[in-house]
Amino acid sequence: MSLRRLFNPESIAVIGASRHPEKIGHIILKNLVDYGFKGKLYPVNPEAGEILGLKAYKSVLEIEDEVDVAIITVPADKVLQVAEECGRKGVKFLVVITSGFSEAGNEEGERRLVEIARRYGMRVLGPNIFGYAYTPNRINATFGPKEIAPGGISFLTQSGALGIALMGWTLMEELGMAALVSLGNMSDLDIVEISKYLADDENTKVITIYLEGLKPGSGKVFIEEMKKVIMKKPVILIKAGKSARGSVAVASHTGSLAGSGKVYEAAFKQAGILEAETIEEMFDWARAFSLLDLPRGDRTIILTNGGGVGVLATDAAEFHSVHLVDPSSTLKEKLKKTMPWFGSARNPVDLTGGAVADNYVQALEILENSDEVDNIIVLYCRTAVLDPVDLAKRLIEARKTMTKPLIAGFVGGEDVAKAIKLMNKNGIPAYPSPERAVGSLAAMLKYKKFKERLASAS
Amino acid sequence: MSLRRLFNPESIAVIGASRHPEKIGHIILKNLVDYGFKGKLYPVNPEAGEILGLKAYKSVLEIEDEVDVAIITVPADKVLQVAEECGRKGVKFLVVITSGFSEAGNEEGERRLVEIARRYGMRVLGPNIFGYAYTPNRINATFGPKEIAPGGISFLTQSGALGIALMGWTLMEELGMAALVSLGNMSDLDIVEISKYLADDENTKVITIYLEGLKPGSGKVFIEEMKKVIMKKPVILIKAGKSARGSVAVASHTGSLAGSGKVYEAAFKQAGILEAETIEEMFDWARAFSLLDLPRGDRTIILTNGGGVGVLATDAAEFHSVHLVDPSSTLKEKLKKTMPWFGSARNPVDLTGGAVADNYVQALEILENSDEVDNIIVLYCRTAVLDPVDLAKRLIEARKTMTKPLIAGFVGGEDVAKAIKLMNKNGIPAYPSPERAVGSLAAMLKYKKFKERLASAS
Repeated sequence: MSLRRLFNPESIAVIGASRHPEKIGHIILKNLVDYGFKGKLYPVNPEAGEILGLKAYKSVLEIEDEVDVAIITVPADKVLQVAEECGRKGVKFLVVITSGFSEAGNEEGERRLVEIARRYGMRVLGPNIFGYAYTPNRINATFGPKEIAPGGISFLTQSGALGIALMGWTLMEELGMAALVSLGNMSDLDIVEISKYLADDENTKVITIYLEGLKPGSGKVFIEEMKKVIMKKPVILIKAGKSARGSVAVASHTGSLAGSGKVYEAAFKQAGILEAETIEEMFDWARAFSLLDLPRGDRTIILTNGGGVGVLATDAAEFHSVHLVDPSSTLKEKLKKTMPWFGSARNPVDLTGGAVADNYVQALEILENSDEVDNIIVLYCRTAVLDPVDLAKRLIEARKTMTKPLIAGFVGGEDVAKAIKLMNKNGIPAYPSPERAVGSLAAMLKYKKFKERLASAS
Repeated sequence: MSLRRLFNPESIAVIGASRHPEKIGHIILKNLVDYGFKGKLYPVNPEAGEILGLKAYKSVLEIEDEVDVAIITVPADKVLQVAEECGRKGVKFLVVITSGFSEAGNEEGERRLVEIARRYGMRVLGPNIFGYAYTPNRINATFGPKEIAPGGISFLTQSGALGIALMGWTLMEELGMAALVSLGNMSDLDIVEISKYLADDENTKVITIYLEGLKPGSGKVFIEEMKKVIMKKPVILIKAGKSARGSVAVASHTGSLAGSGKVYEAAFKQAGILEAETIEEMFDWARAFSLLDLPRGDRTIILTNGGGVGVLATDAAEFHSVHLVDPSSTLKEKLKKTMPWFGSARNPVDLTGGAVADNYVQALEILENSDEVDNIIVLYCRTAVLDPVDLAKRLIEARKTMTKPLIAGFVGGEDVAKAIKLMNKNGIPAYPSPERAVGSLAAMLKYKKFKERLASAS
């Protein structure tokens, strides 16, 4: 069964919905209501009545309408009975929030849950999860924060606590999300199947994954299936528990086999997955993928108003194997006209500290129209003569008629932070340092190579 | 001559002070006034009169009082004459903002400037700089932002534009600064001499340096002298222009010899300098040094409310060679009492997602009193049951009676960002990710080893 109805349900039942604001069954229902889910919502609670202004049902079986998705928040010892009722009702997806299954030694309960689901043709997300979200349909079926910024990043996480914490963080960081999926025990739906669905999802531009471990023996399938995903969408992954002690911590935490870090690294590389070292790096890269089309080539130019940040970006480019192009004398002559005599038209192109927005925009126009350049990294150091928010606005305007990837690295204080937010909201991936801007372009170029390699091998 | 009077002047003259708000000579004078310099301030301007409410003098020679420091902002072709007058006046330090010297091919002008200074026993900072600051005496003699957060980090920079941009950034990031020195052409005062002075400065807890290149032939002296600095204070450095293309960019930018990245790396290691890869990393580490005493040992424990961040921190610890201690069964038994039955008293100590501030504080008390533990990393994932600002306040309170280094890594949205700011203002180095918290402790442990190695070798 396709996962389409999980992400595009016409109706959702919250089983275990509660009137008590601190209960998970209440928070999830409230998030669904507040975030503006447009489909039908059915609270299910043995006492029935009304919850958050919605008519509540004693059992899922009492709902007259069809139910696509049932969010289950009842205690563990009630889950199997509820699942059975959902099956009889013809529910398509069980999203089992409840914990107390294989992660707590209750493998038998989890096995029976899946058995019931199979018997009725239902699919199971979870158990032991904080829910899921899909912003294009205004679904926030999590007990995390109410607000989620919409965008092109989908995120799958094996850690619930981290996932919820990152919901708030992505909102603050202007990282636009499409799907957000808590994986939990992966009793049925797993990383591979969800990734394959999202690879065809038109709202997902990049898939990010926080992974603790795969099930024993599933490595080969993982590599082969993820290759197919990578042909359609970039996948960025962070693997927790790569160290010796970390793998022990993972084992005690999720019960999954952590395996050696080296083995995982090799598998990710083979599959064409981009492996990030830190959470910040993963979302830095995802930001670029979510806002930009894939580069057509690797010839990159750096545009700056400060020599220092230009040099730092140059170092980062070499470190990440980003090809910095040498402009021809024709191109250099054109660029020279956008800067004072002591500027530099070499790469990095240094407009000097006296640069105003016009200098940047003129240089950008020349670079956009040059057939020597594929990608542009624009750097800015806070100066007295150029307000960062003004520059950001001009760059956003200029970008509208540009086809080449444009990535920004701005350094400075509060007003620079404001400029960065503004660009991230308006299609220019922007970072508070030159190195992070370069690293994100590097990830895009690496993905392009992965994809070409996979294409030529198949 | 000691540099004491440069950082502790009784009087400063700004030569080239101007009534026009956009002129550098105006901005520097205004910053000095607004930031609250308590000594005497003398604007010098050929038209005399009054500037910013201060009596202006036609020449430095007209000032009746002694002048410790002269900030020179006059055009390049006037600098030598002004320097000569300063010499006759008995000025002790020339801070030459003006550019147009060796960096622009005018080596002769720079040579003569230094010659004049030598003749009169003056020392020169610059030329080609944005100024300097020293917060303990409320000196902001820069044309950067007016506000600088006071604290224990001193920063020396060879890039002016980056230095100014970072002034705003450090303020936003709650990074407290002691001295801030724009190095410029280093015609006289250089990195080594300023570092040696700051090594004895009681307000400087850590020295950070943005370096593009040393003068040819000065490498050996640099290593030997910096070793002496490292015995007193940690030095964190970022070397720009380590890549092949980056070194060319540096040469065109500052005219200094960039040299191979590998040679520099070896030199830094020999000297005991901590080399950071990015600006962010440099100040992450500096934050820890500025707020904490040096660890007494390397036995580290991680305290968390989320398994996922615990695992990420564990991986980072192994990567950075931070020794995670195995708690004895006695210690584990004590810790077990601070958490629910499904928590973990191993390292990372997992208080679980249900943890409230009391759980953290109780566990901290046990760890502070245990002779098995030297350092504590406290992690937090945003949960519904524990407000991050509340937790931050409790940690700040608890820290007051603690002697062991405490470093925080908090993950979440706006309220977590607020908690991080609060901790950084109140003596707990705090970071928005587990990896950065671990990396900063690792830098402290590395410095400790560097220092021990240098001590045993001497």
